[in-house]
This record gives sequence, C-alpha cells and structure tokens, in this order.
Amino acid sequence: MADKKLGIWLVGACGNVATTATLGLFALQKGMTTNAGLVTELPPFAKLGLASWQSMVVGGHDIRSPCMTATAERLAAEGVVPRDLLDACREDLAEVESRIQPGIAYRCGKTIRALADMPLAPDDVSPRTFLSQIQSDLQAFRDREGVDQVVVVYLASTEPLTGGELPTTWTELEPLLEETGETSLRASSLYAITALERGLPFVNFTPSAGASLPAIDDLARRRGVCHAGQDGKTGETLLKTVLAPMFAHRNLEVMSWVGHNIFGNLDGSVLNDPENRAAKIQTKDKVLGGTLGYDPQTLVSIEYIKSLGDWKTAWDHVHFRGFLGTPMTLQCTWQGSDSALAAPLVLDLVRLLERSSRAGESGPLAHLASFFKSPLGSDEHDFAEQYRRLLEWAERHSAAD
Amino acid sequence: MADKKLGIWLVGACGNVATTATLGLFALQKGMTTNAGLVTELPPFAKLGLASWQSMVVGGHDIRSPCMTATAERLAAEGVVPRDLLDACREDLAEVESRIQPGIAYRCGKTIRALADMPLAPDDVSPRTFLSQIQSDLQAFRDREGVDQVVVVYLASTEPLTGGELPTTWTELEPLLEETGETSLRASSLYAITALERGLPFVNFTPSAGASLPAIDDLARRRGVCHAGQDGKTGETLLKTVLAPMFAHRNLEVMSWVGHNIFGNLDGSVLNDPENRAAKIQTKDKVLGGTLGYDPQTLVSIEYIKSLGDWKTAWDHVHFRGFLGTPMTLQCTWQGSDSALAAPLVLDLVRLLERSSRAGESGPLAHLASFFKSPLGSDEHDFAEQYRRLLEWAERHSAAD
Amino acid sequence: MADKKLGIWLVGACGNVATTATLGLFALQKGMTTNAGLVTELPPFAKLGLASWQSMVVGGHDIRSPCMTATAERLAAEGVVPRDLLDACREDLAEVESRIQPGIAYRCGKTIRALADMPLAPDDVSPRTFLSQIQSDLQAFRDREGVDQVVVVYLASTEPLTGGELPTTWTELEPLLEETGETSLRASSLYAITALERGLPFVNFTPSAGASLPAIDDLARRRGVCHAGQDGKTGETLLKTVLAPMFAHRNLEVMSWVGHNIFGNLDGSVLNDPENRAAKIQTKDKVLGGTLGYDPQTLVSIEYIKSLGDWKTAWDHVHFRGFLGTPMTLQCTWQGSDSALAAPLVLDLVRLLERSSRAGESGPLAHLASFFKSPLGSDEHDFAEQYRRLLEWAERHSAAD
Amino acid sequence: MADKKLGIWLVGACGNVATTATLGLFALQKGMTTNAGLVTELPPFAKLGLASWQSMVVGGHDIRSPCMTATAERLAAEGVVPRDLLDACREDLAEVESRIQPGIAYRCGKTIRALADMPLAPDDVSPRTFLSQIQSDLQAFRDREGVDQVVVVYLASTEPLTGGELPTTWTELEPLLEETGETSLRASSLYAITALERGLPFVNFTPSAGASLPAIDDLARRRGVCHAGQDGKTGETLLKTVLAPMFAHRNLEVMSWVGHNIFGNLDGSVLNDPENRAAKIQTKDKVLGGTLGYDPQTLVSIEYIKSLGDWKTAWDHVHFRGFLGTPMTLQCTWQGSDSALAAPLVLDLVRLLERSSRAGESGPLAHLASFFKSPLGSDEHDFAEQYRRLLEWAERHSAAD
Repeated sequence: MADKKLGIWLVGACGNVATTATLGLFALQKGMTTNAGLVTELPPFAKLGLASWQSMVVGGHDIRSPCMTATAERLAAEGVVPRDLLDACREDLAEVESRIQPGIAYRCGKTIRALADMPLAPDDVSPRTFLSQIQSDLQAFRDREGVDQVVVVYLASTEPLTGGELPTTWTELEPLLEETGETSLRASSLYAITALERGLPFVNFTPSAGASLPAIDDLARRRGVCHAGQDGKTGETLLKTVLAPMFAHRNLEVMSWVGHNIFGNLDGSVLNDPENRAAKIQTKDKVLGGTLGYDPQTLVSIEYIKSLGDWKTAWDHVHFRGFLGTPMTLQCTWQGSDSALAAPLVLDLVRLLERSSRAGESGPLAHLASFFKSPLGSDEHDFAEQYRRLLEWAERHSAAD
Repeated sequence: MADKKLGIWLVGACGNVATTATLGLFALQKGMTTNAGLVTELPPFAKLGLASWQSMVVGGHDIRSPCMTATAERLAAEGVVPRDLLDACREDLAEVESRIQPGIAYRCGKTIRALADMPLAPDDVSPRTFLSQIQSDLQAFRDREGVDQVVVVYLASTEPLTGGELPTTWTELEPLLEETGETSLRASSLYAITALERGLPFVNFTPSAGASLPAIDDLARRRGVCHAGQDGKTGETLLKTVLAPMFAHRNLEVMSWVGHNIFGNLDGSVLNDPENRAAKIQTKDKVLGGTLGYDPQTLVSIEYIKSLGDWKTAWDHVHFRGFLGTPMTLQCTWQGSDSALAAPLVLDLVRLLERSSRAGESGPLAHLASFFKSPLGSDEHDFAEQYRRLLEWAERHSAAD
Repeated sequence: MADKKLGIWLVGACGNVATTATLGLFALQKGMTTNAGLVTELPPFAKLGLASWQSMVVGGHDIRSPCMTATAERLAAEGVVPRDLLDACREDLAEVESRIQPGIAYRCGKTIRALADMPLAPDDVSPRTFLSQIQSDLQAFRDREGVDQVVVVYLASTEPLTGGELPTTWTELEPLLEETGETSLRASSLYAITALERGLPFVNFTPSAGASLPAIDDLARRRGVCHAGQDGKTGETLLKTVLAPMFAHRNLEVMSWVGHNIFGNLDGSVLNDPENRAAKIQTKDKVLGGTLGYDPQTLVSIEYIKSLGDWKTAWDHVHFRGFLGTPMTLQCTWQGSDSALAAPLVLDLVRLLERSSRAGESGPLAHLASFFKSPLGSDEHDFAEQYRRLLEWAERHSAAD
Repeated sequence: MADKKLGIWLVGACGNVATTATLGLFALQKGMTTNAGLVTELPPFAKLGLASWQSMVVGGHDIRSPCMTATAERLAAEGVVPRDLLDACREDLAEVESRIQPGIAYRCGKTIRALADMPLAPDDVSPRTFLSQIQSDLQAFRDREGVDQVVVVYLASTEPLTGGELPTTWTELEPLLEETGETSLRASSLYAITALERGLPFVNFTPSAGASLPAIDDLARRRGVCHAGQDGKTGETLLKTVLAPMFAHRNLEVMSWVGHNIFGNLDGSVLNDPENRAAKIQTKDKVLGGTLGYDPQTLVSIEYIKSLGDWKTAWDHVHFRGFLGTPMTLQCTWQGSDSALAAPLVLDLVRLLERSSRAGESGPLAHLASFFKSPLGSDEHDFAEQYRRLLEWAERHSAAD
C-alpha cells in the first residue's frame, strides 16, 4: 500500500468534523498524537493492510469560502484541538484549503443556504448539471494529486428530510437527474450519485437521508462500489446502543427513555431549524425498539445552546421496572466534543472503505454498522454485536487477501 | 420436571435479598407479577426445560431468629415490594420461617456476630462440628419437604477477607476441618463445603471469598458437583462491565473511573466496617483492567447512608481522552433497589444450576459469568460477551438433553 | 381563632395537589404526620395566631365527577401519600367529595374540556351566568358548613394564555361579563372575580394568567380584599431562584441556563398541549433576568413522560464563566413529588391569606412572593430576599394585631 | 488611594491559586480580562474607594524554588488561564518570581515537607527563629517596592490539625515561641503571628487551623489589626450554604447529605494524606447543622484523581423529606476550576482587608463571612445572609469614611 496515494474528499470541508479530521491526519503524519479514538489502530485491525496515514491527501467541497484555518482556530480556542498542533499545521491547512472547491446546496432549504458566503446555483437547475461539476472537481483532484483511489465522505449540515415518494431503483431514478423542476433529491443525493457512478466509495456520515436512498444503493450494487452510512454514532446514541442491550439481557423493562442534547456548534445551529432537525431526531430515536423488542415512550431533543460550542452535553433519563414491578432510574450525562468524537471515525471509515473496495466488496457495508446511528444494510443496533461483526470481518480479511 | 420438587436453601434467609427472592417466588407461583427482571424468562431460555416456579420450596439458615415477615414489611414500606403482594403471602412467609434454622458465623468478625439475636457457637469449635450441623439441617429439609434436589445459595453478610495462606487442594484442606484453633476458613467456606460434599449445587452470591477458595473448587470437581459465584452483579458494576467495553472498542482512553455507592440496608451497615468492606471493594474494582487492557486510576467507595434504605445510589464519573487527547466526561447515576435487582438473579441461578446439575456439569460454571462481579472459572468481564456465552450454553442444552 | 370555622374552597378539587392538600389536612387534624413541608409551622410564624388545622373544612369545584378518593389511591400507589393515611381518611374524603360541585371551563381550550366527564356549558354563555353559579355554590358551602371565612384557591389545569388586549380597570372590564361572544377571559378569571366580588381572599396557585389580570387586581383593591399568586414555586424554579443569586453575588457570568422538566401527571398531560404549555414556560423562564441583571440564553422544556406520574424530574444545566473567562458547569437533578411539594404551600397560603384578611390587608400580597414563580405585586425573584420579607411581615404582625 | 502602593504577600506563592491570582492581577492591570468572578467589582462596592488594581504589587514565600511560570504553563494547558494572557505576562511573572523567598514548613508533616525542593529547617528550631526570618523578608519587600501597606494571604497546602491544647490568650502563647521542643503550632501560625505583630492584615484562605487560633485572634485585637479566614468558600461548600437555607425555609427535612469531591491538583495530592485531609473535611462538614437547626447524616469525601488536575468535580446527593414524609432527592454536580474560583476572592479579600485596615477595624472581620467555609467571628453559614451583611458594611463605609 505504501506507494499508492489515497484521496479523502470531504463534503463540508470547512466544518468542525472535517477540520478536526484533517488536523488529526496531520498530527498522525507528524507523529504529534497518540492513536486515541481511532478504532482501526486497535490490535484486531493490525494485519488488514490498511492504508497508512502517510499515504493520504485531503480535498473537498464547501459552500463557504475555504476557512479551515479559521475553524481550526475556533476549535483550538474551545479546547477541542491542541493549539500547538494547529501552530505546527498552518501551512498544511492552507494547502488543503487551496484544494477546496465551491459546493452545492441543491434543495437543502433556507437555513443551509444562509450559511453560504458565495453565490449558489438556484434549485431549478437540473441535478445533472451539478453532477458534472462535482465530477470534474473530483477528477481534477485525482489528476493534480496523483491519487489512485478517492473515498468521498459526506459531512455537510443536515438537510431537511427528502419530501415525496422516490423511485427505489436506479433505472427509475436516473431520468429525474435531467429534471429542472422540483425533485425530492437533495445535495447529498447528488454527491453520492457522482461518487458511486465514478466507482468511488462513499460514506454518508450525516443524518441526511438523501444520500442513502434505495435507488442510490441500487446504483452502488450495480457499479460494484461500496458505500456506508448513515449518521455517525458518536455520543449519546452510542451510549444508548450500549445500555439498551443491558436492560434487554437482564429483562428489565424500560418504561421511558428521555434524551436531551444541547450544544452550540454550526451543526447545532442548523438543527435549530425544525425542518433539518426532523432528520436527526429520526435517526437518534429508532435505536431502542429493535434492541428491546418493544417501544418504550421516548423523547429526544436537540437544542442549540451557543455557549457550549462544540461541546455536546446529553442528559439521558431511563425509567425502568425491575422484579415485582419496582421502578428504578438510570441517568447519564455525557460531555464530549462532537468533533473530537466524530473525526477519528471519519479517518477509520476512509481506511475501511478503501480496504473493502480493494477486496471487491460492493453495496452497503453492513459490517460497519457500529459506526452509524442508522446503519445501511443492517438492522442490528446492539453496539457489542455490531462490533463483533466488525471483528469477524477483520479476521476474515486479515487472513485472506 | 413438573413432578419433582426443587429445594432452595438460602443462607442469610432473613436478609433483604433472600426475602425478596422468596416473596417473588410466591408472586410467580400465584401469578401476581410479570417476569420482569428474570433472565431465565427471556425467549432464548424457553426450551431448556428449566424447573418451574411451582416446583420450588424454600428453607434456609440465619443467625437472627426467623424474621422474614418483618423484613418484608420493611421492604414494602420502602417501596421495594408491593404491599398487596406481602398481604397475600403472609401465611406462605410464616411457613418458610418455620423452616429457617439457626445459622453459624464461624470467624465472620464482630460486626456480623453483633447481628445475631441468638447464642452463637464460639470460633474455637472445629469446622467439622459446624459442617455436621448444617448437613443435618439440610437433610431434615429434604426429608420433610420431599425434595429431590437442593440448590444452596449463600446470601449472608460480607465476611472479612480470608486471612492467611490456605492450601489449594481439597486433600490438604480437609484436615483443617478438625482444627479447633484459628483457621483462615470462614462461615461461607463451611456452607460451601457441606453443600458440595453432599453433591448439592452451590451459589456464592456474595463477595465473601471464603466460599470460593481453590480447594473448595477442587472439592466440587472431585465430587462432580457444580458451583457458581462470586458476588452478584446487580447495579453499578453491571453498568461498568457494559460501559468499559464501549470505551475499549472505540479506543477511548479511560484516565480515571470513580464510583461512589451509597445505601442504607443491613448489607450497607456491615460494609461500614472496613474489614468487611475490603472484600466488597476488591470485587467491584477489578473489572476494568481486564476489559480495557490497562489500569486507569480507579476509586470505589461504598458508604452507609441510613435514609436510603435498600435504594442504592451510585455515581460514576469516567474521565476519558479521545482523539488528539481531548478530555471528556461521562457521568452516571444509578438509583435502584438492591434487593429487587438481586432477587430475580438468585431465582435464575437456582434454575440454571439445577439444569447444569441435571446435565452432569461440574466445577465452576463459567457460562454464568454475566451474573457475577468476580466470575468463577472465567476472566471475562465484558457483559455482552458474558451474555453471549450464556446464550451459546442455552442453545447447546436446548437441543441436546 | 379556635372557635371560628375556616372554609377552603379548592378549584380543581379532584386533582393531585388539591387531593394531597386535603389528605394532608386530615393527617394534621388526626396527628398522623409531622409538620414537614409547612412553612407556617416554622418558629417565626408561631405567634401570628394563624388559623388552626382543626378549624378548616374543605369544599370545591371540579369538571370531573367527584373522584378525590380515586386520585388519592393513585397517589398512594405512586408513593406520594402513605397508604395507611389514605386508609384512615376514606370517610373524610367521601365527605369532601359530597361538597364538590360541577366546575366551569370557560374558554379553557379543548385539552382541558376533554378532561370533563360531565356536560359543560358552551363558551358562548355570558361570563355573568357562570359567576352566578360559582357564587351560589360558595354561598351554599358557607351556609351548610357554617364557616365565617372562605379562602378560594385556584388549582385547576393550566389554561391557554389570555388572548387579546383586556382593559386594565375593573370599571372597563365589568361590562364584558355580560358578553355572550368571544372574550379574552378564562375560567380562572371568573373564579377570581366571584371570590373577590364577594370579599373572599383568592389564591392563584397556577400559571393561568386569567386570574391575575390587572383589572382583577383593581377589583381586589376596590373591594379591600387580598389576593396572591401566580404559579406555586415548588421545584425547579425554586432552585433557580436560590441558585441565580449565588452566581450574581459572586459575579459569575451565567452564559446559558437549560432546564428540562419531565413528569407524567394530569398537569403534565395538559401541558403537553403547546397552547397550555406557553403559559407555564412563561412563568418559569423569566426569573433569571431580574436577579442576574442580564439575560443569559435560556431554555425551559416541560414534557409529559407517563411512567413518571407525579414525580417530576428536572435537569438543570448552568454554563457560567468565572475569573479570566474560565467556563464552568453546574448541573442539578431534582426528583420530587409535584403534589407533595405543592400541597403544604396551599395550606400555608390559606392560613396566610386568612391572617392578612383579618389584618385588613388588601390587593396583592407582595410579602408572599417566596411562594410563587411570578409573584403578584413584587419584582423580587431572589428566594432569600423574598423569604426575608415574609419574616419581616410575620414579625410585624406577631406583635401588632 | 491612587498614589499609594499596596503589597500582596502570598504564602504558597507558586501554587495554583496564588499563580492564578497573580496572573489575574496582571490581566486586570493590562485590561485583558473582564471583572468576572470579582465580588468587589459589583456595583454595591463601587463607592468604597477600594485600592486600584494598578496600585498592587505581589511577592511571597514558597518552599519550592520560584516556579510561578511553570505553574502558569500547567494551568494554561489545563484550560484554567488563557494562553495568550500567559504569553503577555511572562516578564511580569519573572519579576514576581524574583520576589519569592524560601518559605517555612514548621510542623507541617511529611507530606508537605516532601513538596520542598530546598533544604528546610528542622522542626526543633524555635518558632521565634522563623518569625524573624519571615519578618525580615516582609520588611525587605516593603523597602524594595516602596509599599505602604502589605496584606498577607496564607495559601499554602493544608496542614495537619494542630494537635494538643493551646493557650487561648496571646500572653500565654507568646512564651511558646521560644520553645525548641514540640509545640502544637504550625507554619500557618507563624505567618499569622508575624503579620499581626507587625500590624499587617492577614487572611487565612486555607483550612489550616494553625493560623486561626484564639490566641492569635487575641493578638490581632490587641495590636488593632484585622484578619479574616478560614478556608475560602469556592465551590461545593458555597453551594451547600446556598441550598441548605432553601430546605430550612421550606421546612423540608434533610435526612442525609453526601458530598464527594474529586480533583487532581497539588492541593488534592496533599489532602490525600488523611492527616491533612482531616482539617479540610472538618471545615466542609460543619456548615449544615447551624443552618438547618439539626444534624442530618453527612458524608464528605475529598479524593485525589490525577487526571482532573485543577478541575474539581463535586457530586452532592441530598435526600430530604417533604409533606407527609414523602422522600425526595436533589443531586448536583459542580465542575469548576478550583483556582479560577479562588483567585478572584483572594484579590477581593486583599482589597477588603486593606479597606478595613484604613477604617481602623481590628480583630476578625465578621462581615467577610461569605468568603469562608469557617468564617472567623461569625456563626452565620447562610450565604444570602452573609452577603447581606457584607452589603450593609459596604453601604456603611461608602458613606462614612
């Protein structure tokens, strides 16, 4: 692997997660950090022949003028990334910024469009027009950087839910790309389609459902490309999928599960729009039923509290019933940096999709379920079980290829 | 199974856990409760042919005059057991009380001896004398109740740690039973030895190490009897063995893990004696290292707060480090009734040991690791993995026997 | 005082608070409880010559058929009131039930109307019609029970905010009482007006703004009657008005204050209707600005979680900034029975209004600010300062009258 | 005031609190911070004519070689002080370091002595020898810096409790200063005595009881000097003295109050020695009884958890009983930087003692009770009441002098 270059294409490149992932990659390349937070650095993944950090190069799209350095400054001020790391990487960040291209916001709603500091094409342009633009940006990146493979990671702000009915096969969906009228597609759909059409592995790390449509999955299978998603499982939901099995395996009846999330980064500000929030809450709220076998009353809120910045705080209150009906309570408070939790998973997923791609795997990668709130290709929400399947996959590929 | 009677012999019969288990058994026999809290009532255990609740009959030892009804009154006042259940079971409780025999407190220390309201034999009697007494009580119970099999469950207050060096084989240990001088054996050792010598399955649900000596395990293997222990995993430690793997599998470095436990039942009052507490903290504190692969700073306290009664409240504070060294925090507060959490596990274990016994299994039952803080015969502390092994065992025995 | 009878007229008599207050009064009369939770039983109030518990007799209105006993059963099952108290008071409860008259729900919205199990007069009847009915019920109570004085306490479910502009003087408001068309008055307005017109002290213990209109206050002053309100300060808001001064007096800058409240009683179910909730959140949310001198970002949610019943759980997250801008956090979790917190304050207020009435005080009783989230006649929200003013009043009246 | 220079002499000058106070003073002098955290910057103190920040100059003692800059680096890395402030103040810190003299550790126990990186005089030297040394250091500071007044603030690590009986008058105590054998005096006693003998106001910001002996108070009164202490009230105890009155004024019965404190700074490491901890827990634990009027069961622990550094986390669990005996719970988690909370109070106290000194006040300054866990000269623990008395003092002196 050492001789080949691997491209990472981040959609939403100037956001917190993309910036932290990029800075983290530099830290790994410069030996300035430990491997904390990186799943693929655990012993069971040592013999997979994963791409080295040294081989990776980053580019991306954003609807804001390149501002990764400004984002990094903010994150350093908030204590999310170390200041000395930022100081050591200013030139590297500038280089990445020079590779960031103007992004698209096709039918993403007014809250997302308001983030842009550049003219955005109107929504009545045909999707195909956008596809061509994205594709040509990707091709230019490959040519200029001499990369063999690119993994595209969708990290842009959460879009509103896709509205109407959409066809479930690629054959039926493809003609819609020529439409200039209203469609139920979203920017995320167009990024996914471009990547998969070109044979590039695609990760949807966000709750945006537009990138995870059945017809897009159909496209991936037809082209023999792999993809993964949806919505990185980083904090409160991770905890839920770890705790819910405990209740299930002890036959403790969960009567209600309340989760309140507060945070103040850009993601939070976008989620303050009820349209955009709907998508997020949907992926956070459906993990319990499957694991428990019944649906307790649940409540999930996500609220924007400016002073918290990137530090997401979640309070979970679980009310459950034990032997003889005795009511009991478990409360958890999770205080974590959203970006420091998400960024290493982005790097892990790049490595794992590149590896699956090399192994010829296509369609949704169900063995990556542990990384997502709404895993594509899998109904399993129990984190321990999800992780066991990842280990099995790793063992299989450590020996085989 | 339906026609055979199964005896449950509870050591510490008038304590909270034994009383709740007994009341719970009546509730199950009378159809007055759901199966909440009972692991063996989950679907994977349906085809094991486990003993029915109807077949079970309870007796036991205690160093207090039979006072199960008084204990039940207190638990009802604290909201641990429903008052209408208690009202429906007064006669049944009185019947069990009539089967409770005076217990022993061999070398259990002054705090435990102070609980007795009856004359206790001094510590300089030979262990063998006690063994004979216990054995004759057990035999009388079998004869009078016509039970085929008895499972002995040790639920008495936590003893001080066994002091000195003890031989690790039964051949070497057996002669000590004739000693009238000081030995490192404890009451729990004598109950375990009696049960296993007589071929009766034995469960050590407490932290008392005296019942889980290597030489006693050797005895179990030689006699072909099964046993299980040590220290039921009911609340805070259960949570730890569920959460620690999450940190490990996400490569999040746990820097410190603090757990403060407060409660006010008799168990708590005994644990207020530092001698007795030492045993408890030892079993609570060693679950992390194995799972994480390193030893973070840990702190475990157990304190007696009278007003809480049976309601154990535990505050856990986990300080961990993610990507780029970013420090984060998880806090949990667990508020549960100690007895309502433990009692169903006692009933589960009775069923599971009886089943293993019928299947001819002997020695420590490693597949029961999920029930214990310091599982005999197993180094596995990850709850999900422990439970998976229990499921495997269940599957094997559902088909086979 | 001993020889005179004092009537307590509870509007919403079958609700949790009214039922707990009534049961508590019986407990006090029978000597079955301590004085815990009763402010007026503290030493500074000993010489005020307050009405004795023995002198009090309860009646009331409700839009549900008298069901105080059923409510009490539910509260006992939830652990809010002791079962043996309930058992001792069944006849007394039945007697109170016989004094409960059909209530009104004038312009209270569909959620409240849906609670009724009796035919309700439509909203296009003139307010005066309702006034006459209420007044005649009150008169019948006084006659039948031979009470000298009646304190009317409004405890019914939270109404939607009063809609449009309303006149601020009684002279202008009075003619509206003859209108059969839409008015901005609410049921609470009509209860308040009836009481005050008849010279009876009135307490608005709820967030319903309809009872606390300026024109109604004007009426109180004109008639020389005293009244108090609005919205009993029982749990999370009490805590806020205790904690906020700490931040202010230490010059710690509160950046954000988030409060999530979950509970499952009838009150919670009514507040699940956004129309009704608006009134509640308004009173909970405005206590900070006055105390701090600036407005931090705040968030207050109240959500209905059925399993919690009367046990309100509130999580508060305060993000503040200290010296050199260092951000810090205080989190509180309050787990209390809503009714057990509110009921003694209702009894306290009855005593205190009766006493003020005897002393000839009229208009809003500002010295009672410590009892309310939105105190009438006072801008003071600092609980310590509010309490100090109550003490001053008590001292003044202990000597004087 | 503007023309006069005010000296601040910090004992334990290289510790976290002293360093943060010094850095904070520079920030104020340079206009690099807001006044957050400073009580004396609140409006009620505006007309007192307090010393300006510009007028102040810092010196001190420490038993470690001057290392304020190293301490500041560590605090910046922990996020307690801003890095850009540190960068702007390196020269100023070096200047203060040049004024730090070798300290004493008279009878402070082995844990404190182990902190020294310089030879310490043995404990069998007479106290008078140490007094002379301290006095000459103070005199040199005054001469060199041309300061009119010096306030001495004791910030060194918590000493073991003073052992035996000590005389309560200065006349009886003074002769002990010549003893070379064992005395019950401690280093803190000697610093206090030197300051007060020389007429310099003295603040004991620590739990060390040695500086707050009755005989030392006697000295202060005789010399007409003012002093204040003991043990700065910064976090959990502040919260206790704010919350306890709430329970008292609502007649809610506190059944138990548990407080667990974890942190990892040097203070924490010293308190890990049970001898030193005893002093601390004593001052933290006695605030409840006075306010509540009875003594609930309490538990206070302070534990050293290295990873937390200066960030003290305290979990408080209050179990209380309301109306009809209903048990309820309040839990609080306080996460604050110990030094950022304490440092501004140090600066406030310097100003306030200098002001009292100018006003001719002597003996213990009871109006400063709100700053301390165990206020000298006052039995009042209710924070609101303590603050009210401070306001009264401020009002009196705003007009008068």
